Amino acid sequence: MQYSQMSTEELQELKKKISEQYKESKSKGLNLNMARGKPATAQLDVSMDMLDVVNSSSDMMAEDGTDCRNYGLLDGLPEAKKLMADMIDTTPEHVIVYGNSSLSVMYDQISRGYSQGYLGNPAWCKLDKVKFLCPVPGYDRHFAITEIFGIEMINIPMTQDGPDMDLVEQYVQNDACVKGIWCVPKYSNPQGYTYSDETVKRFANLKPAAKDFRIFWDNAYAIHHLYEDRQDKILDILSECEKAGNADIVFEFASTSKVCFAGGGIAALAASKNNLEDIKKNLTVQTIGYDKINQLRHVRYFKDLNGLNAHMMKQAALIRPKFEATIKVLEEELSGLGIGSWDTPRGGYFISFDAMEGCAKAIVAKCKEAGVILTNAGATFPYGKDVKDSNIRIAPSFPSIEEMLEAAKIFAICVKLVSIEKILETR
Amino acid sequence: MQYSQMSTEELQELKKKISEQYKESKSKGLNLNMARGKPATAQLDVSMDMLDVVNSSSDMMAEDGTDCRNYGLLDGLPEAKKLMADMIDTTPEHVIVYGNSSLSVMYDQISRGYSQGYLGNPAWCKLDKVKFLCPVPGYDRHFAITEIFGIEMINIPMTQDGPDMDLVEQYVQNDACVKGIWCVPKYSNPQGYTYSDETVKRFANLKPAAKDFRIFWDNAYAIHHLYEDRQDKILDILSECEKAGNADIVFEFASTSKVCFAGGGIAALAASKNNLEDIKKNLTVQTIGYDKINQLRHVRYFKDLNGLNAHMMKQAALIRPKFEATIKVLEEELSGLGIGSWDTPRGGYFISFDAMEGCAKAIVAKCKEAGVILTNAGATFPYGKDVKDSNIRIAPSFPSIEEMLEAAKIFAICVKLVSIEKILETR
Repeated sequence: MQYSQMSTEELQELKKKISEQYKESKSKGLNLNMARGKPATAQLDVSMDMLDVVNSSSDMMAEDGTDCRNYGLLDGLPEAKKLMADMIDTTPEHVIVYGNSSLSVMYDQISRGYSQGYLGNPAWCKLDKVKFLCPVPGYDRHFAITEIFGIEMINIPMTQDGPDMDLVEQYVQNDACVKGIWCVPKYSNPQGYTYSDETVKRFANLKPAAKDFRIFWDNAYAIHHLYEDRQDKILDILSECEKAGNADIVFEFASTSKVCFAGGGIAALAASKNNLEDIKKNLTVQTIGYDKINQLRHVRYFKDLNGLNAHMMKQAALIRPKFEATIKVLEEELSGLGIGSWDTPRGGYFISFDAMEGCAKAIVAKCKEAGVILTNAGATFPYGKDVKDSNIRIAPSFPSIEEMLEAAKIFAICVKLVSIEKILETR
Repeated sequence: MQYSQMSTEELQELKKKISEQYKESKSKGLNLNMARGKPATAQLDVSMDMLDVVNSSSDMMAEDGTDCRNYGLLDGLPEAKKLMADMIDTTPEHVIVYGNSSLSVMYDQISRGYSQGYLGNPAWCKLDKVKFLCPVPGYDRHFAITEIFGIEMINIPMTQDGPDMDLVEQYVQNDACVKGIWCVPKYSNPQGYTYSDETVKRFANLKPAAKDFRIFWDNAYAIHHLYEDRQDKILDILSECEKAGNADIVFEFASTSKVCFAGGGIAALAASKNNLEDIKKNLTVQTIGYDKINQLRHVRYFKDLNGLNAHMMKQAALIRPKFEATIKVLEEELSGLGIGSWDTPRGGYFISFDAMEGCAKAIVAKCKEAGVILTNAGATFPYGKDVKDSNIRIAPSFPSIEEMLEAAKIFAICVKLVSIEKILETR
């Protein structure tokens, strides 16, 4: 029975019972962290052999004869470009290979827009107002970057097919202050949605009011499937944009941080020829080059897309049961109660949970009190402000299955308790 | 005899003879590159064992229990902070360990000043004018960074004790638009000068007109000695600034790019507590963290400062003969002719040569024609403008000794030829 249809007496009775369960959970003194999309130790173990493929007896020459130990090749090893291009379904000539963090590549691109401007357009710091569109719920670290540069963020609701494209088109095509949009197009953070072909095509066919509008296409989970037989596919945004005569409209980002070692991977940016030239003009001032030895390590270990995909299936085997266990608890404990809804992703790193309005913060706080750390409520929205106070991001990767089960049960208890209180409050 | 004291006939005679030598050199079709401070292959070979110390059977935990394979520790492994601190004679609590490039750390700091501002001061992009002092000759990549941010650069002449401090004090203490100065305090690029204790103390005791003035102390060659028995020492700028009540006035930079692998090293920034907190507020938006596996690799391989120093003596054994060979050719071929002067550094990566005024570009061009590539004339000055057209940077590290000898001889021939032409021109 839905909680809202229960009598006040029934709810008070239930509250007593669940409070007991909560008290019991709390007494266990747990310390479980589901806050960040952090790989588990077992996932890191999977990649250990990668540390052997480049050693003191290795040939350190890249395919083009470059000594990977020396300066040179600002934009990356040709074979690393190929690997990263394959990973995101584009071609090597669109790719620059960077250091260990795609987040810092995104920060760099925003920073470049702010201080230099794109392709001869004015630097954003010289403008009165710069706005970004932010599909919500979304990735808190994206929003933190735009916030620190003083860029005004506008919420765009997400659907299962991607951002609300009517709204996106309306803003982008009418407001020249709108300079960009943050997207996680595949297995989105936190909902696990994958943009439909129509959404990708509408992005590619945008007619922006601002010449320097860019889509920030963070393809963070390009190969991060949970299943071998049920995998989302997404159109290649770069070629769609080219087809639409809009080649310069997009920057695509990816990394191997959640493929091999978090923080020990390599990152890539993919873009049009014009954009790459523009970026490299700046990049050559910024650095002599990135760590080519780690690029070589990647290429020698993964070899090609098949190698990457096979590796990701090992990761899936470790992470999938945690997703399934979490979803199972949510289903068993919360289905049909009308106090929350959630998604069942086929990839990525998160489960998105929508509580009753006005309950998210209280649920996260209650979980914390019982030793279960979740991402801060509101974090999935710009400025940390979820006006509905409803969305909670669950990151099941780091704890063990047993811990995750325990944590999910406590989470369900907290959702119940807070929801009952909320319903009683409004009677 | 000095060329300028020779008769026109003598000079014309000499020119004929040297032109023949030049022709002969040219006919060899050489291709020698002395343009950049690039380690030689043999120098890279010295560090190959470093690639074995972190392997698939390694304990991947840092001293504090951090799994180096996962996210975490924004500012670096504690033991990597210690290693980098020891390298530049400071203490770990002053240090952030970054990725592979100190140049990009410097770019970042300029970029942060430009777009965010330091310690609550206005972002430079909001000011009408920002100026930087540039000791000359200096490092072209420093100047390129300030140039790309539209910062006006002011030349400060170098002396054997460091920049002309009277002039530095005059600018810094009277002009609030002066926000920084580029310094390579030890084995300076390109002259190989090391700042005297008095110079360091005068830097530490500056009373800037601008609250957000910073010394950009690029300690690039801290342990890059050419000799075991003759090593320059420099005062620790951070503690001198603290003593002077000026703790926040300096950012210090260093890296291991020319210790182990160029582009495969780690970089560090050292600064006051206030500055570090200010930086980390921004850095946490910019990245989740740097490559801790490479930090671990450094610590396990070098162990401590003794390990670093012992390693650098192996490097010195390889690079010193090239310096000595070059200097020997310069002495044999050019001493007493009054057509050029040079320094004999005890460390670093460069030899600085001052030709007669108005001759540097022509010498570099003539060398190029004969297959010897030097750093562009003017590159050691802001905007690439050496008003005297005199300074040439020689980078002897990359070629073999035999190649370096050959290249130095051709260089001497070109200096002679161009100088004779210059003298004749003015008669």
